[in-house]
Amino acid sequence: MSKRLVVALSGGIGGAKLALGLSLVLPPDELLVVANTGDDFEHLGLNISPDIDTLTYVLAGIDNPATGWGRRDETWSFMDSIGALGGEDWFRLGDRDLALHVERTRRLRLGQTLSEVTADICRRLGIGARVVPMSDDRVRTRVRGDAGWIDFQDYFVRQQCRPVVHELAFDGVTLARPQADITAALRSGDVRAVIVCPSNPFISVEPILAIPGMRDAIKASGAPVVAVSPIIGGQAVKGPTAKMMRELGLEASAAGVAARYGDLLDGYIVDHADADGVGNVRARVTIARTLMTSLHDRETLARVTLEAADALALLR
Amino acid sequence: MSKRLVVALSGGIGGAKLALGLSLVLPPDELLVVANTGDDFEHLGLNISPDIDTLTYVLAGIDNPATGWGRRDETWSFMDSIGALGGEDWFRLGDRDLALHVERTRRLRLGQTLSEVTADICRRLGIGARVVPMSDDRVRTRVRGDAGWIDFQDYFVRQQCRPVVHELAFDGVTLARPQADITAALRSGDVRAVIVCPSNPFISVEPILAIPGMRDAIKASGAPVVAVSPIIGGQAVKGPTAKMMRELGLEASAAGVAARYGDLLDGYIVDHADADGVGNVRARVTIARTLMTSLHDRETLARVTLEAADALALLR
Repeated sequence: MSKRLVVALSGGIGGAKLALGLSLVLPPDELLVVANTGDDFEHLGLNISPDIDTLTYVLAGIDNPATGWGRRDETWSFMDSIGALGGEDWFRLGDRDLALHVERTRRLRLGQTLSEVTADICRRLGIGARVVPMSDDRVRTRVRGDAGWIDFQDYFVRQQCRPVVHELAFDGVTLARPQADITAALRSGDVRAVIVCPSNPFISVEPILAIPGMRDAIKASGAPVVAVSPIIGGQAVKGPTAKMMRELGLEASAAGVAARYGDLLDGYIVDHADADGVGNVRARVTIARTLMTSLHDRETLARVTLEAADALALLR
Repeated sequence: MSKRLVVALSGGIGGAKLALGLSLVLPPDELLVVANTGDDFEHLGLNISPDIDTLTYVLAGIDNPATGWGRRDETWSFMDSIGALGGEDWFRLGDRDLALHVERTRRLRLGQTLSEVTADICRRLGIGARVVPMSDDRVRTRVRGDAGWIDFQDYFVRQQCRPVVHELAFDGVTLARPQADITAALRSGDVRAVIVCPSNPFISVEPILAIPGMRDAIKASGAPVVAVSPIIGGQAVKGPTAKMMRELGLEASAAGVAARYGDLLDGYIVDHADADGVGNVRARVTIARTLMTSLHDRETLARVTLEAADALALLR
């Protein structure tokens, strides 16, 4: 009998689009989405998990397609009011979105784990696939710019990615343990594929891979590891991936991302626009349309990625 | 030189209307509004202070005149969303209103006192008069109905005051200390009047008076104490005052309220509709229009109340 479990590593909207595609082509119990929590932060006294939130909203079909974050049909009365009371208003929290942060914060304070809260909220919103945080331990991505180390959301939202990035760190990661369902899945002998979603390698995927034991567990699962390039035609679809690569002295290209992942990858999906530059990529390359505009695009790219993984499994 | 400070004891909307009237006829530094915090509770992980909130919104001119609680121009997206995530939705929190609870909760968690948070928020909203919680210590009103003791907001909001009230208790009150500004004001020798606003005696004013030392400090201030009846024509303008009086075996009347306050009162303002029933009230009675419909009504009743107090001071 063939192996069934697909483990997808994801950051925010780019990864969430592929996760949605995978959720459309796989039975619910065959998909485990691992969310980066290095972006998590405490703001206005609330526990905010931006990548879990985006995955939750996208998989529940209540995401805001215009922004790539937050909920559709959103209102902003809370945000209009908080500044006048002395609260910070640089991080935009919609009124509906706020319900998730308030409810998560309440439950975490009661002693529930982030995994438990996330699982229950996904269930309530009708999400079939499992979404798990990379760890229930606290990991915080920090960015070293010209003015020194700053918190990730300070860099990403408050300063709109303007600072030049010299270095990244994942505070707390050496003490973090992989979330239990991830370890159990990777050890099950039943993993069909590990998919690295088209997310920013530095700030979305590497925090996951930096958790002690995570990279080894992926390797030891025996499953083919297939990444989808977040770079199309030398540009990031969204976010600072290409800018960050240049600032870190790397080649801002699909091939540059593959090089960054190193020997982790068995397969790599790149867009037609980047087909000429991937001659030196060590993983087996599949050329496909990777821009996910429509729901059909998401589903098609999910199928292409799974087929690439299945083909690699046959070669073993 | 005549005494200057007016100390007003208040619950929610009834008291807040008179507090607004007082704020319109007094210079800002001559009014200290003492808010009941027995109604305070923790809900959805947030610290909610309903009477402080109502006083804040009324004095800032941003209250909702239709409901008597919450803010005007409110939206309800948070409330529409929280239920689907497993959060409780029986206590209505508007999106703008929520900003106050989130910001208060954040600051209390940082170690600020409720007094400090309240003072700063009032200042930011342009409120000249001081609004202070009756205590920075935790006091919680509890209600004994047929099914035993329940929390106040369970009685008041979730069960819409339906349970028959047999007894009230102010949990924590024996350990509570009066807020420091109240004590300082009452000891200053500069108190022109202590005004008991037209709030529910049992659940709005008595929690304040039950704080050890509060009643004695009011007496010792030497200032005339004048109450405004919350009962008009034998009915409460809003809320369960009359129902609660009947259930507690008391006469549901303006005279019944005065009897409840006992020797605390020097003066008592009652409506024309209740003029016939106050023959046995021991305090000096002033008959006036006490229904506050317009802003002019609030201001006029404030003047009548202050004049009654000043007349009592001359008699001493």
